[in-house]
Amino acid sequence: MRLFSVCVTVALFFLPMVVRASDPLPSWAEGPAKESILGFIQRVSAPGSPEEVPASERIAVFDNDGTLWSEQPMYVQAFFAFDRVRQLAPEHPEWREREPFASILRGDLATSLQGGEPALLEIIMATHAGLTTDEFDRVVSDWISEARHPVTKRRFTQMVYLPMLEILAHLRKSGFKTFIVSGGGIDFMRPWAEAVYGVPPEQVVGSSIRLAYQYRDGSPVIERLAEIDFIDDKVGKPVGIQQHIGRRPILAFGNSDGDYQMLEWTTAGSGPRLGVLIHHTDNEREQAYDRDSLVGRLDRALREAPVQGWAVIDMKRDWRQIYPASVQP
Amino acid sequence: MRLFSVCVTVALFFLPMVVRASDPLPSWAEGPAKESILGFIQRVSAPGSPEEVPASERIAVFDNDGTLWSEQPMYVQAFFAFDRVRQLAPEHPEWREREPFASILRGDLATSLQGGEPALLEIIMATHAGLTTDEFDRVVSDWISEARHPVTKRRFTQMVYLPMLEILAHLRKSGFKTFIVSGGGIDFMRPWAEAVYGVPPEQVVGSSIRLAYQYRDGSPVIERLAEIDFIDDKVGKPVGIQQHIGRRPILAFGNSDGDYQMLEWTTAGSGPRLGVLIHHTDNEREQAYDRDSLVGRLDRALREAPVQGWAVIDMKRDWRQIYPASVQP
Repeated sequence: MRLFSVCVTVALFFLPMVVRASDPLPSWAEGPAKESILGFIQRVSAPGSPEEVPASERIAVFDNDGTLWSEQPMYVQAFFAFDRVRQLAPEHPEWREREPFASILRGDLATSLQGGEPALLEIIMATHAGLTTDEFDRVVSDWISEARHPVTKRRFTQMVYLPMLEILAHLRKSGFKTFIVSGGGIDFMRPWAEAVYGVPPEQVVGSSIRLAYQYRDGSPVIERLAEIDFIDDKVGKPVGIQQHIGRRPILAFGNSDGDYQMLEWTTAGSGPRLGVLIHHTDNEREQAYDRDSLVGRLDRALREAPVQGWAVIDMKRDWRQIYPASVQP
Repeated sequence: MRLFSVCVTVALFFLPMVVRASDPLPSWAEGPAKESILGFIQRVSAPGSPEEVPASERIAVFDNDGTLWSEQPMYVQAFFAFDRVRQLAPEHPEWREREPFASILRGDLATSLQGGEPALLEIIMATHAGLTTDEFDRVVSDWISEARHPVTKRRFTQMVYLPMLEILAHLRKSGFKTFIVSGGGIDFMRPWAEAVYGVPPEQVVGSSIRLAYQYRDGSPVIERLAEIDFIDDKVGKPVGIQQHIGRRPILAFGNSDGDYQMLEWTTAGSGPRLGVLIHHTDNEREQAYDRDSLVGRLDRALREAPVQGWAVIDMKRDWRQIYPASVQP
């Protein structure tokens, strides 16, 4: 009798730890958001579940900026482009007098962007084209291993969202194939997406510039041309999904109006489907923003989420932790 | 003693069957071609091999027409396009008087193609555009399940090369990811490539027409526009590989000059690499053709194969069997 009660006591003591240890999403607070995501994954992947989806059709797509990592005060790729303008400036003395470059070199980013989209395009072309794909890969890899966020002082790859890393891992364990579908540059994400997210280059979809197969000193190279090829944003996202993946996802995560059509396309199909919006509500641990933000504006998608049946994640309420414990000083 | 000799006899009797059973490429004749392919796969994938390549970089690419299935007397997709012209003709009475359609409807394919590339393009646009992606998927699936080759009377999916199916399976077992990189239409291959080759839609790269995200009766669709987006042939193949896969393959199979740049790009990288050309030499079991063929012309790549170090498969000598035993009457 005594032994029995000791066993029961010991069991009750360890039970929460066992439950906790087997929780695939430990950094998510208990609540309807976590339940709806875990429930969906369970329904489509548990063998014999009446809603089981064949493994080959378990396609999950994720926006990157603001969904898998931080996008404030501006996109990480913009930090990269500005740093690269400064790095390339010695080869371009004319930039000292010419906008949008002159303002960047003076450290006045706001003025440099006053030229709107044409200015942005000029910065992208000056910093992302004119290299081979192998060279650009190295430039991005070198930059991402060194650059740090101006406010948190973390490396950008340490500003990924821990709760989303848990989702990615749990999905892959449940037979899903996970894809990034981002408005960001496809070749800006590929050099580090596998190490950081576990998403290999061939599962990264993004915006691209045109490429050309050429020869340098008799060896073949793929040259990056100063010409836009594809913009993977808004209506471009379902198109990019069709071009790269060739079938409709059953699960989509986004955080801005740029993801509206991706979530719409994903959830308009037949069978079990889920669309999820990350709502940036936490002004202490990250930054709270939605309809009035220039970067990652979230308005229409948030308004229509209830009608569309999309789950809305409240970062402040639903995420116990935002970033991974920093491993790099 | 007697038992021992019985055992030895039995063992010697079964030994060839055991060896045969463990041969991953049973329909390949023994010889240097088979050895070079098996040796390469072993070297890059055997754990602890000095040339072992990380699994994530074991990318193999395959041309489709003439490499994985037959392309004579014309591409399978051309049979599809001509059948579709006949199927759509009642909705287009003007086609009876207008080339290239009039000739097709009279059964005179040679004349219909006298208009060269513009004629071909007009046929493709009339038969491959103006549908949603879901509709086109169904049209292709229906056609491929019924259509038969005019000479062999086999279904086209039964005119895939058994030796290549064995290569695909052995590569995947050895940790490779297998991709199709074809000049053919990406959305013409995707509906059946997974069932026939084990290659899922997201690992099919091909030529494409432009797509647009639109609404029909309030529901989102992806519309196929009558406009070329990308031609995945010759210099387009390395570009298509970069856009879709994002890293350089280490193994490439092709059969025509259209695959030259794909093999060149694959084998010009560092580390262990292999390029393989299928040479159609068998006029009895298939069709012998190379430098003078309009379809699948193989000239420069064959001439330069020795210099480039590419393996050349002689179909007549190296393949014991061409097609799978037909399972569908």
